[in-house]
Amino acid sequence: MAVQTAADTTTLDLGPASALSCRECGERFELGPIFACASCFGPLEVAYDLPTEGPEELRKRIEAGPNNIWRYAPLLPVPADVADKPSLNPGFTKLVEAGNLARELGVTGSLYIKDDSGNPTHSFKDRVVAIAVEAARAFGFTTLSCSSTGNLAGAVGAAAARAGFRSCVFIPHDLEQGKVVMAAVYGGDLVGIEGNYDDVNRFCSELIGDPLGEGWGFVNVNLRPYYGEGSKTLAYEICEQLGWRLPDQIVIPIASGSQLTKIDKGFQELIKLGLVEDRPYKIFGAQAEGCSPVSAAFKAGHEVVRPVKPNTIAKSLAIGNPADGPYVLDIVRRTGGAVEDVDDEQNVAAIKLLARTEGIFAETAGGVTVGVTRKLIESGALDPTLTTVVLNTGDGLKTLDAVAPTTGPAATIRPSLDAFRAAGLAI
Amino acid sequence: MAVQTAADTTTLDLGPASALSCRECGERFELGPIFACASCFGPLEVAYDLPTEGPEELRKRIEAGPNNIWRYAPLLPVPADVADKPSLNPGFTKLVEAGNLARELGVTGSLYIKDDSGNPTHSFKDRVVAIAVEAARAFGFTTLSCSSTGNLAGAVGAAAARAGFRSCVFIPHDLEQGKVVMAAVYGGDLVGIEGNYDDVNRFCSELIGDPLGEGWGFVNVNLRPYYGEGSKTLAYEICEQLGWRLPDQIVIPIASGSQLTKIDKGFQELIKLGLVEDRPYKIFGAQAEGCSPVSAAFKAGHEVVRPVKPNTIAKSLAIGNPADGPYVLDIVRRTGGAVEDVDDEQNVAAIKLLARTEGIFAETAGGVTVGVTRKLIESGALDPTLTTVVLNTGDGLKTLDAVAPTTGPAATIRPSLDAFRAAGLAI
Repeated sequence: MAVQTAADTTTLDLGPASALSCRECGERFELGPIFACASCFGPLEVAYDLPTEGPEELRKRIEAGPNNIWRYAPLLPVPADVADKPSLNPGFTKLVEAGNLARELGVTGSLYIKDDSGNPTHSFKDRVVAIAVEAARAFGFTTLSCSSTGNLAGAVGAAAARAGFRSCVFIPHDLEQGKVVMAAVYGGDLVGIEGNYDDVNRFCSELIGDPLGEGWGFVNVNLRPYYGEGSKTLAYEICEQLGWRLPDQIVIPIASGSQLTKIDKGFQELIKLGLVEDRPYKIFGAQAEGCSPVSAAFKAGHEVVRPVKPNTIAKSLAIGNPADGPYVLDIVRRTGGAVEDVDDEQNVAAIKLLARTEGIFAETAGGVTVGVTRKLIESGALDPTLTTVVLNTGDGLKTLDAVAPTTGPAATIRPSLDAFRAAGLAI
Repeated sequence: MAVQTAADTTTLDLGPASALSCRECGERFELGPIFACASCFGPLEVAYDLPTEGPEELRKRIEAGPNNIWRYAPLLPVPADVADKPSLNPGFTKLVEAGNLARELGVTGSLYIKDDSGNPTHSFKDRVVAIAVEAARAFGFTTLSCSSTGNLAGAVGAAAARAGFRSCVFIPHDLEQGKVVMAAVYGGDLVGIEGNYDDVNRFCSELIGDPLGEGWGFVNVNLRPYYGEGSKTLAYEICEQLGWRLPDQIVIPIASGSQLTKIDKGFQELIKLGLVEDRPYKIFGAQAEGCSPVSAAFKAGHEVVRPVKPNTIAKSLAIGNPADGPYVLDIVRRTGGAVEDVDDEQNVAAIKLLARTEGIFAETAGGVTVGVTRKLIESGALDPTLTTVVLNTGDGLKTLDAVAPTTGPAATIRPSLDAFRAAGLAI
């Protein structure tokens, strides 16, 4: 696989990142903009020389860092001075103790929402893109690119603008206006592709192999090994915000499955470094019924995932052939968790439940995790007496259509006290 | 003025707040849900017994507090244990050093954007509502209410849900669907009023005086003195984030004018407490040309503000008769600042400029402050060699219509390299 970069990789500074290693066969490669193993085509991931200082010192170093993901620079593929470079500085979003929701769900332990709608472009994608930007800088790329159906396009456009990269982002031509505006407003080139998301993806793969795409960092293709590491910061933040403690249970949405695998990787690193006590935790995966290949495989006891054609309002989770599906199954089974799914109606009900109890307006992916949490409690798979963290990875303002048909005024009246009295709302 | 509450005000705990005092005649009143002086009808504001500890100790106490507005509890009308109560915990939003924007505007000093789109419901309204909620709690109110055209309705709905209040919010019946959904999704009662915003306001004033509204806290009416204090936290955060230093210049949007007056109040308190060095600062006000009564009065050298009928895309600033207009004029003149306005076209250009340079997608109120900053630099009123802070008080996702007509794909093509080459974007 050709390394498409002008940078001399021997002078690369990606902090503690030491190599890329194949998740399948373990073969190691020099750090570079490559994403598949030259021997077995397995996915590559970042290997590290992790800090050798004691946990007390490392904790102190992290806590003295900035209120964003760069506080974890010693555990990420980024240079030590990363916080000084122009970045959207995502992360360190709120871990909300959700007492009202807990009561509604019959949870007697502690229930938390990790609310990533607080990121700069209001989705967790800002985390992964921020790491990809640093890799792009290191490899000498000047253009950032991606294929996207929405959240990622906005995150790449915004991050590129701030960090001084050109961006050129590809989307299906028929996206909703809101997502198109969000993807285009940052001033990069937005290109509509006549076709669906699969067509966009295929086109991007062609472009990477062509001289036209030279100098381009596709955050979710040739920078994917770095990009994916951004999800580890969710694990770090949750544990730090719990007082350097692992949660007992965590509910994570599954699109490609990468986020779930990287959160597990993050937990394992914290254990290895002694930053948290090594105790059991259960990882649960959440899908939308209309795109639930991993949930189906889990329930059937399969080790492989059979691709599906997505049909769900949870568009940010609508990946019918999730690349990390088998790894997700491994992790969920290893930790004693489960994968569950909810239909569109349960999703909308869960979005409203979270809004009504905690004042958090989640996108449809958040409806999936909250809805699945409810279902897992009802089935007994999730223990309501323990500490549970549920991820909300995006913002309801981006998926208004999901709730709009059933969310509106309780009454519309003339501006008079009599009319208000007649509406029967004054209790 | 009747105090509509069951709570015994002699046991009130609103922290350092000691009384309400009339901004016009100085008469003092007991803390309560009142908003106008019984003698002269002037607006009431909160008076304090400020902390007596030295600046070093106070700074340390603040810095050890939570990453939200409650770190400033010693300077706000809230009990000392406020951080333990259920709240959306807004504030401590990013102060972004805007180097790219500075270069475009010819600023050679330091230019910062205080980006309040990072608040829980993505506008600065979360700050003021959070304080109003604590006042409502203290006064024994059980329902939170307001009149609103958008941002405030969402902020009240969300805060009420989280804090365990019923909410009943009034809006004009013909608002955009997005704002209606955001106002209704948190599960409170949303009531559409057949009429415009003025009709909604008049209706709310009637309701406050009627038994129907008993036990109701209208955040921007009978809780307004407390509500307004939330804007002081912008002043505190900016100074702390600058390293406990006043900015030389600050550009603030003007709707009612309350935010600008409270930021000045916050700066004055920090000086008085010795938390920052007492040195000159200039406050600049920003309006939209289609609703610029304060800008017009400033330019004409008037001391009173002549009401206008708003006609601007900056709907969150569209208050034609700003209550705090005269106080804004006083402050701007006292500090050596100015008030300026931009038209809709300049507003949209400024939204895009900020997005393109810093990856921040502002609502139309942010377009107004950035556009006015540009104009003030061009006119020489704002010194480009000094430290300047520009406020962005809301999120572009809420005012998509402003930029949508001129923001879209650079090209729409078939999924082929030839088509991409022909589009001329691959540079």
